[in-house]
Amino acid sequence: MTHDTFRFYYWPTIQGRGEFPRLVLEDAGADYVDVARRDEAEGGGEPALMNLLQRRDVGTPLFAPPILQHGALFVSQTAAICIYLGDVLGLSPRDESGRWRAAHLQMTMADFVDEIHDTHHPIAGQMYYEEQKPEALRRGRHFSSERLPKFLTYFERVLEANADSGGWLVGSECSHADLSLFQIVEGLGYAFPSALRRTAAECPRTRALRGRVAERPGIAAYLESDRRIPFNQHGVFRHYPELDQVV
Amino acid sequence: MTHDTFRFYYWPTIQGRGEFPRLVLEDAGADYVDVARRDEAEGGGEPALMNLLQRRDVGTPLFAPPILQHGALFVSQTAAICIYLGDVLGLSPRDESGRWRAAHLQMTMADFVDEIHDTHHPIAGQMYYEEQKPEALRRGRHFSSERLPKFLTYFERVLEANADSGGWLVGSECSHADLSLFQIVEGLGYAFPSALRRTAAECPRTRALRGRVAERPGIAAYLESDRRIPFNQHGVFRHYPELDQVV
Repeated sequence: MTHDTFRFYYWPTIQGRGEFPRLVLEDAGADYVDVARRDEAEGGGEPALMNLLQRRDVGTPLFAPPILQHGALFVSQTAAICIYLGDVLGLSPRDESGRWRAAHLQMTMADFVDEIHDTHHPIAGQMYYEEQKPEALRRGRHFSSERLPKFLTYFERVLEANADSGGWLVGSECSHADLSLFQIVEGLGYAFPSALRRTAAECPRTRALRGRVAERPGIAAYLESDRRIPFNQHGVFRHYPELDQVV
Repeated sequence: MTHDTFRFYYWPTIQGRGEFPRLVLEDAGADYVDVARRDEAEGGGEPALMNLLQRRDVGTPLFAPPILQHGALFVSQTAAICIYLGDVLGLSPRDESGRWRAAHLQMTMADFVDEIHDTHHPIAGQMYYEEQKPEALRRGRHFSSERLPKFLTYFERVLEANADSGGWLVGSECSHADLSLFQIVEGLGYAFPSALRRTAAECPRTRALRGRVAERPGIAAYLESDRRIPFNQHGVFRHYPELDQVV
């Protein structure tokens, strides 16, 4: 482990919000430790996360995973980590305007992910789905009918406006924002396959971007490795067929 | 209007999320136009927002207000605008670590604001409060009991960890993050006075920060001006006494 090794902290058994930074690290072939996925005996597991949230020597106390440590620097919040990693690993647009536009897209995707999460937890993240199911039915179906199309067709418009530049969201190269949009489409394919299928017909450029990201060497290798945790019913993207209904 | 004039776009009749960037502009005494608050005849009003969202010559199409235009650059997303303005107006920490820590806090406050919004709109932002009132009662009371204390005591811990540096969240000077925390406390005082009073007892440093920001010359002048729109029942912070109940 060199000085440049990244230490990444996130829940060890889900993709969740942590998958967005993981994809940037993997695409770049960065040297990183996914700390909580190590054995507890080696300083990993959930206790590693809990200890970090208690630490007082990190400058500003941390609120929640995901958290990235790079040398003495700690960066938290999914969007901030993706932007930071994009900057240092060559996956951010290089011009100032492009950099802010990619940041804007990354934060808009974070909002989208929050809405995806709240379909199954419309009342409280701390309660079980079964404790908020009537509310989830209303929110989930509204999401499937209105919000999923609104967000996805927005990103399609972004791709359309940049269509002459190789099919990426900003500029002429792949950025952290493209990797995150790939992950959202993958997650929706697991959680909301029916609603996604209905909107995907209007989003050919988004579908093409998904395929283009999947074929990038770092991403293709990652998706086939056991580092990629399969989607499951504990992350942000959960498949409840009763929510995946257009009304 | 000089080349350095900022053009700021947000709904003209509410504080909402737009108030966070407005406070940065006002604290710095920046030269800015709050575009949609101008008369429609002068190119203002809500049509100015709608036109901007349709524009195809802004690089990346924009998703929603607030939006900042600075020369040819467009920055959107509340947290991104506050960070950008902090950088160019001297209200961001100057060291890299401090800058990312302030960004992290700004994004965590954006999450807090989303949760505040969803107390009165737990199902859909496009529906009226009255159409989602049973769900709002559950979410609002959970917020008052659990989430408001969790977030506020977190920011109190941040201030405590930085207590030797003058009472600001990061470093030894006021940053965009401090201005945003001030606004959240003001908004909670309007929307959730009872829950805020209960938690404020544990948060002396946050209360002190609120007073310190209010006394800054740019902020004090702004709060007394008619540029400060009063809180009302259309913004993010809304006072429904039935939600402001600890269970």
